[in-house]
Amino acid sequence: MNAPVPVPDATRLAGATAAEIAAAVASGTVTARAVIEATLARIAAVDPSINAFTDVIAERARARADRIDAARAAGAPLGPLAGVPFAVKNLFDIAGLPTRAGSKINRERHPSTQDAFLVAQLEAAGAILVGGLNMGEYAYDFTGENVHDGASRNPHDLTRMSGGSSGGTGAAVAAAMVPLALGSDTNGSIRVPSSLCGTFGLKPTYGRLGRGGSFPFVTALDHLGPLARSVADLALSYDAMQGEDARDPGQTPRPFEPVAGLIGEGIGGLRIAIAGGWFRAKAQPEVFAAVDAVAAALGARDMVDIPDAARARASAYIITAAEGASLHARRLAVRPEDFDPAVRDRLLAGLAIPASWVDAAQRFRRHFRDEMLKLFEGYDVLLAPATPCRAPKLGQKTFVLDGEEMLVRPNLGLFTQPISFIGLPVVAVPVRVAVGEAPDLPIAVQVIAPPWREDMALRVAAELERLGVAATPAATL
Amino acid sequence: MNAPVPVPDATRLAGATAAEIAAAVASGTVTARAVIEATLARIAAVDPSINAFTDVIAERARARADRIDAARAAGAPLGPLAGVPFAVKNLFDIAGLPTRAGSKINRERHPSTQDAFLVAQLEAAGAILVGGLNMGEYAYDFTGENVHDGASRNPHDLTRMSGGSSGGTGAAVAAAMVPLALGSDTNGSIRVPSSLCGTFGLKPTYGRLGRGGSFPFVTALDHLGPLARSVADLALSYDAMQGEDARDPGQTPRPFEPVAGLIGEGIGGLRIAIAGGWFRAKAQPEVFAAVDAVAAALGARDMVDIPDAARARASAYIITAAEGASLHARRLAVRPEDFDPAVRDRLLAGLAIPASWVDAAQRFRRHFRDEMLKLFEGYDVLLAPATPCRAPKLGQKTFVLDGEEMLVRPNLGLFTQPISFIGLPVVAVPVRVAVGEAPDLPIAVQVIAPPWREDMALRVAAELERLGVAATPAATL
Repeated sequence: MNAPVPVPDATRLAGATAAEIAAAVASGTVTARAVIEATLARIAAVDPSINAFTDVIAERARARADRIDAARAAGAPLGPLAGVPFAVKNLFDIAGLPTRAGSKINRERHPSTQDAFLVAQLEAAGAILVGGLNMGEYAYDFTGENVHDGASRNPHDLTRMSGGSSGGTGAAVAAAMVPLALGSDTNGSIRVPSSLCGTFGLKPTYGRLGRGGSFPFVTALDHLGPLARSVADLALSYDAMQGEDARDPGQTPRPFEPVAGLIGEGIGGLRIAIAGGWFRAKAQPEVFAAVDAVAAALGARDMVDIPDAARARASAYIITAAEGASLHARRLAVRPEDFDPAVRDRLLAGLAIPASWVDAAQRFRRHFRDEMLKLFEGYDVLLAPATPCRAPKLGQKTFVLDGEEMLVRPNLGLFTQPISFIGLPVVAVPVRVAVGEAPDLPIAVQVIAPPWREDMALRVAAELERLGVAATPAATL
Repeated sequence: MNAPVPVPDATRLAGATAAEIAAAVASGTVTARAVIEATLARIAAVDPSINAFTDVIAERARARADRIDAARAAGAPLGPLAGVPFAVKNLFDIAGLPTRAGSKINRERHPSTQDAFLVAQLEAAGAILVGGLNMGEYAYDFTGENVHDGASRNPHDLTRMSGGSSGGTGAAVAAAMVPLALGSDTNGSIRVPSSLCGTFGLKPTYGRLGRGGSFPFVTALDHLGPLARSVADLALSYDAMQGEDARDPGQTPRPFEPVAGLIGEGIGGLRIAIAGGWFRAKAQPEVFAAVDAVAAALGARDMVDIPDAARARASAYIITAAEGASLHARRLAVRPEDFDPAVRDRLLAGLAIPASWVDAAQRFRRHFRDEMLKLFEGYDVLLAPATPCRAPKLGQKTFVLDGEEMLVRPNLGLFTQPISFIGLPVVAVPVRVAVGEAPDLPIAVQVIAPPWREDMALRVAAELERLGVAATPAATL
């Protein structure tokens, strides 16, 4: 195992999906070690211009690859993700590294003593962790910019945002440095970078995937999930990550409900509608063009209003600001100068939000969830925009939506916040439409299902992929 | 059953305990109907000077008494509280009456369609509800004063407070209008009137007794429990009220743990300590004399500090003001003029309490509970004052404690708030000590046990009663 390993052409592996890599490793076409060397080489070549990685754990990844290759040589069974490199937003614990959560303050902490639950689940399936990814400070971000580590750049245009807060995650996948990476999504932090970088992203039902060993933001709204360049890879990794996490008291006990075998089933029988009202305003024209292209491909014609979406978004905002502020109250008091000012000032304002507002928001949340469940009696899947525009320029502070100049940072989550607010599962599917400025850049559509029905959202996403409507564009890096 | 029922001399029954009445009814010495007629007669005679009752349900009580008498005549088994009259603070639902919760606004509601869970439990044991009792508005009160219904007066001195918020409950029991009545205790509302009126009162462990069909104040702190003139009556009624309440999601499932058979066991083996620090300051001299008399009778000499009691009280205060304000936010916005100003203005202030303060208070609560549980590793029972003084005069706004002039209304709960804050079970035991002004007036001591150990607190209370140290003084009405 210590003999020199031939490194295959990195660009050949770079476009491969997790499923393709696992198949190649399983068949012996390539060794896991070769995959890891190619991955490390690509990261070394590409990441200086992207800035997606904050930590690369080359030695650990090599050792793990060698163990997989040895297992294969010995005839031992391999997991469904054997040899697949992946990376995680740096709010996931990685044994031996401090969990920085995008902050300056937390990187001074003791190194983690064990991996996060989802890292362990993926590695149990044979995947190989190669590093931690850049993110917006403490996940309170939709831009992918970070004052401490620099912005994660958009692989399709290095002058543009990757989206946040899982910006490094979206960028690493879109730039084909890894086929698979994990992000977190409290108000849109998986779906916004998926839209801006053009990856597929899955935000599962609230309570589905265990959050043990991840740094929280707003416990009642935090979700974890994968980003990938294919729906099959989302499904494969999602199946590997299901399971009971004793470290997450917020997890809802569920049976194992695998989806990987279902996504090719097509969409026969699914009733699909377009979200109207709030979801048809305050966006640039390419956004509705994208939703309409998806709807047309699926034969979906009904448009349904989602009443109170504005209030849902405002309520998510209040709960986020108040609970986020509580979480960081002591750090804000002791080390305010070590925060990103854009994060700090919103958290400081959050400290003053009355408990009665938060209570009212929580009460509304139950009402809104009940209303949405009623809507799902008539439809299985809803289509909605993921972001109000394609990737803004790095540093861009405002955009014009529906004739109104608005702040970029909070409003990139305009369409994602009302959905995660009630924990619905969503797959973000990247599409390209020849409308608006920068038509080569991707933009995503949210495919939204009722609670615990990730399978339906994934089936629709797979159908869009099969039809050629949804795809991650190749980044020329 | 419709023949005229001879009404026994009301004063003869007036001093009887629930246990004595149940025994007399069971043996046929007196009919349940006669007990009810005597009770109604005593209420009619005495309550005009006390103002404890807001509703008397004579016909329902008579019908129920007749059914019990008929059951006895037919040889059917009777419950352990057969024929025992009782009343409830008017935040308990009584079928056919609106649940006013001490307010003007809520009495406009539709009548309740069913009784509260604990009412049903007591009646299932044979007890007979005779009416609803006056209380401080929305239970945000320690005085027993009510601007809509007038104050409940102290039976031992009609110019003095009954204590609150279960003021009518304490007064009705102390005035021997009923042997047993139910109150609620969020921050001290059972223990404060027990102290000022000289009744025994049980605030069980948080989560023990079902709260279905009672109007809430602060869900995380609300407890329900009995007041009586003997420890045996507390135990009898407490045993009858245990059981699963499907309407109270805050109830903790527990096995039936009867205590009535245990309270005569004495205190052998119990390690009893006196609470120091916070609990030895800011009170009039008779308060410590009362605690010391109880401690001496029990042979308790150790004094233990309860660190952070001041912070526990402040935290209870914050949670109460914020969550109470949330509960009433809509009513405060729409009908502020229909609140008691003393309640309204504190609730309005509560609307502005930051969520981050409430979160910090909740975090501290877990810490404080853990610290107290450690303390209970060394002791079984703690003794602490119930109130910082005997009953103040009606309308009295301030008192001087430890040389400092303080507001009466919030500070009557000085010693009760830190204990209910973490849900510990407490029995308030009334004692008389020849110290201070008005030495004929009672004052209570808190007998505090670890969670789910009501039995230990009741055993200590019963021992104090047996020794003649604790007793409800007779009211000369």
